[in-house]
Amino acid sequence: MALQLAAIVQALGGELHGDGNLLVDGLAPLESAGPSHLSFLSNPRYRAQLEGSQAGVVIVSPAMKEPALARGAAIVADDPYLYFARVTQLWKKAQPRPAGPAVHPSAVVDPEAVVEEGARIGPLCVVERGARIGKDTELKARVFVGENCVLGERCIVQPGAVIGGDGFGFAPLPQGAGWEKIEQLGAVTIGNDVEIGAGTCIDRGALADTVIEDGVKLDNLIQVAHNVRIGRNTAVAACTGIAGSATIGANCMIGGAARIQGHITIADGTFVSTGTFISRSIHKPGMYTGVFPMDDNVSWEKNAAALKQLASLRDRIKALEKKS
Amino acid sequence: MALQLAAIVQALGGELHGDGNLLVDGLAPLESAGPSHLSFLSNPRYRAQLEGSQAGVVIVSPAMKEPALARGAAIVADDPYLYFARVTQLWKKAQPRPAGPAVHPSAVVDPEAVVEEGARIGPLCVVERGARIGKDTELKARVFVGENCVLGERCIVQPGAVIGGDGFGFAPLPQGAGWEKIEQLGAVTIGNDVEIGAGTCIDRGALADTVIEDGVKLDNLIQVAHNVRIGRNTAVAACTGIAGSATIGANCMIGGAARIQGHITIADGTFVSTGTFISRSIHKPGMYTGVFPMDDNVSWEKNAAALKQLASLRDRIKALEKKS
Amino acid sequence: MALQLAAIVQALGGELHGDGNLLVDGLAPLESAGPSHLSFLSNPRYRAQLEGSQAGVVIVSPAMKEPALARGAAIVADDPYLYFARVTQLWKKAQPRPAGPAVHPSAVVDPEAVVEEGARIGPLCVVERGARIGKDTELKARVFVGENCVLGERCIVQPGAVIGGDGFGFAPLPQGAGWEKIEQLGAVTIGNDVEIGAGTCIDRGALADTVIEDGVKLDNLIQVAHNVRIGRNTAVAACTGIAGSATIGANCMIGGAARIQGHITIADGTFVSTGTFISRSIHKPGMYTGVFPMDDNVSWEKNAAALKQLASLRDRIKALEKKS
Repeated sequence: MALQLAAIVQALGGELHGDGNLLVDGLAPLESAGPSHLSFLSNPRYRAQLEGSQAGVVIVSPAMKEPALARGAAIVADDPYLYFARVTQLWKKAQPRPAGPAVHPSAVVDPEAVVEEGARIGPLCVVERGARIGKDTELKARVFVGENCVLGERCIVQPGAVIGGDGFGFAPLPQGAGWEKIEQLGAVTIGNDVEIGAGTCIDRGALADTVIEDGVKLDNLIQVAHNVRIGRNTAVAACTGIAGSATIGANCMIGGAARIQGHITIADGTFVSTGTFISRSIHKPGMYTGVFPMDDNVSWEKNAAALKQLASLRDRIKALEKKS
Repeated sequence: MALQLAAIVQALGGELHGDGNLLVDGLAPLESAGPSHLSFLSNPRYRAQLEGSQAGVVIVSPAMKEPALARGAAIVADDPYLYFARVTQLWKKAQPRPAGPAVHPSAVVDPEAVVEEGARIGPLCVVERGARIGKDTELKARVFVGENCVLGERCIVQPGAVIGGDGFGFAPLPQGAGWEKIEQLGAVTIGNDVEIGAGTCIDRGALADTVIEDGVKLDNLIQVAHNVRIGRNTAVAACTGIAGSATIGANCMIGGAARIQGHITIADGTFVSTGTFISRSIHKPGMYTGVFPMDDNVSWEKNAAALKQLASLRDRIKALEKKS
Repeated sequence: MALQLAAIVQALGGELHGDGNLLVDGLAPLESAGPSHLSFLSNPRYRAQLEGSQAGVVIVSPAMKEPALARGAAIVADDPYLYFARVTQLWKKAQPRPAGPAVHPSAVVDPEAVVEEGARIGPLCVVERGARIGKDTELKARVFVGENCVLGERCIVQPGAVIGGDGFGFAPLPQGAGWEKIEQLGAVTIGNDVEIGAGTCIDRGALADTVIEDGVKLDNLIQVAHNVRIGRNTAVAACTGIAGSATIGANCMIGGAARIQGHITIADGTFVSTGTFISRSIHKPGMYTGVFPMDDNVSWEKNAAALKQLASLRDRIKALEKKS
């Protein structure tokens, strides 16, 4: 497969410097790109990589135009990373792909579910009655969409995701005699342009719906409990767990393996670091962290032991201060 | 859909105050309930919510009878939350539901597996030979139950769960030459009234079985390794990992994203906080915690850096104490 | 089912002490084994268990030959644990197993995928076009292998694993307007003798491939992001998350629920403790840990509160030292 430089620029804009007839047969990072590859420089810090690269063509910002042209062909674009993202889409579209039916014959789609125009239901998916799969939304394979759950338009759901399993709701029976199930009567409502990763689970609400707003991106193996709401364009990295009724604002970035306490609220534009447990509401956007710093095991053992005495160490410091 | 108040009280007991002919067309929390909704107050701390609620009817404890009646209709019950749980069940049962076959035609059930009366095997499940699905147990969809694994009665297994994958067992070959597989010859035994969440994995035992006792509730994306035993009525929240041969007692509550060390024992009635790594046996019930407190990133960085010197800070305090 | 002692020794070697006609009808740990069971002692520390065991036969190292023979039949082998692993394999092979087709009729295998000789594709698997399943590799059930992904020979993939979902790649649109998808144009390349656990997800690379080298063992519910490379014979325990473009060396052991930062390198032979976040490259092999030590909740609360003042406590110690 190959794309002509001129065709790329015609489709995506940008300023071409070099021979428009040049054929690009692959995309690659600067360090491994060869003469028939298209690459990009998004961060001026990596300018040295640009200068050493064998790439046939590079996408650069206007500020990097000069060093780029000094080495060969270039496309100058305002946001090289975004431009590159769009080239990957062009690339994908250019690959011949067998049409296939909108609903794979191995999928189990309830006759009372709605699959809108342009939507694709991949092999071995289950779509229960009352569910709605929006226009141009794709369930890749082995995806479960439960009763009455709604996905908007242009969503992508990776293999193995479960949308609309029961939330974890039980009332304790008297005297530790066990648990009574609280039937989960809500559903899941997902907006437009949402991506849901492999193995990610989004539970249906207890009474009202669990809500994922437009543009949200969820990575793999994420747990979204019942009645959570995730705001517009928020991105959540893999292995994160979000407990019941938490509300995450718009444009947040939640690092991998974070844990969000139930019934709390996180302000728009908040960053949560990898592995952090958010134990209370965050009203002020910013970056929040709580992770034990790694160390060689011997040092860790010493410090971890001292940590168990920290409150008393604080008291001993106070006592010393009084004396001195 | 609507239920008559009198019908609810006839089915579930409790003391009705108000018009039994009233139709309830939804269940909702106090803060969002409207005049045709049934709500509940389980915690007297939220009495103010009761007074401000628009709910048509509320379920309250005897102690809250007076303020409840001051505002309108009520059902008085000893345990309002449990009563509410049972109303959700009534609600679910009242919804018309197509019968469907006990074993969905897309499921792959080995002829040597046993599916007992009233059990339901949903679409795209796999049940291998020698497995047994107890009376009235439901595998929702896309559930795997491996060879010889046994589920008791009235269990519910959410989509994507894997029961009876191989445990992670390998013997090291000499000189780092790799690993020799230890075939996992045990199975999984699950009691009655167990619920297993979406994407949760329970491995088969190495020699003997992995055991989940009656009434256990497992949330989503939990890992239960080989030869684990989880005691009666214990509840485990999402994203928790339980390592091989750990034994968890009865009536424990294990928070989300907890990690349980292998080969340890946890006493009946233990609470484990979210994100805590239980690194040794717990003989005394209580609440156990071990999670780095979240902070704004700048403060965290300072404290985390100091933490790496904590053992030496302790020594410096000792030295100061000697001098003073 | 039963195996004759002589047959075991004939197949696996070792020095038999006792009656070769003895039939063993089960494998069990020393503490629960009965007179018709075969057991093993791999760690001399557990010699007392050997002496008290009812096992009919035990596998022991040459150093333990004497106490073993004092109590009955034994197989003496250089590495009893490895020998035991091979007995489990013998046991498994001896169990009658229906042949079944190489590709289960419920699996969806693209005509342009390659399934090599001796490979088995279990029920409800999906294998997309261009994928290749190597000789004698087994996809147990409900496994997804995406377009152009390649598995080597003798691999085992447990139920629910997803190989070749899209990596999590998005370029931010200007002014928080959302995200532009970066199509993931690479695939996943998996070597020989790799085992992949239930529910584990391995994303396809963005441009180049995600690579899992020969002999790697991945437990359940692990996230392997795009462009990760995991070196030969490394073992990773359950619930671990490995972020994009991380490179893990050969012969590493990564504990459960570890988190590996993106774009870092981990030296061959590194041990990572359970729950540890590896935030930077590790150039020197060793054991690395970073996990908050568990405590009863009251003690934890005190120490965690003090931890938020740790940097200032350090300053106060410095001040005291100046004064003294």
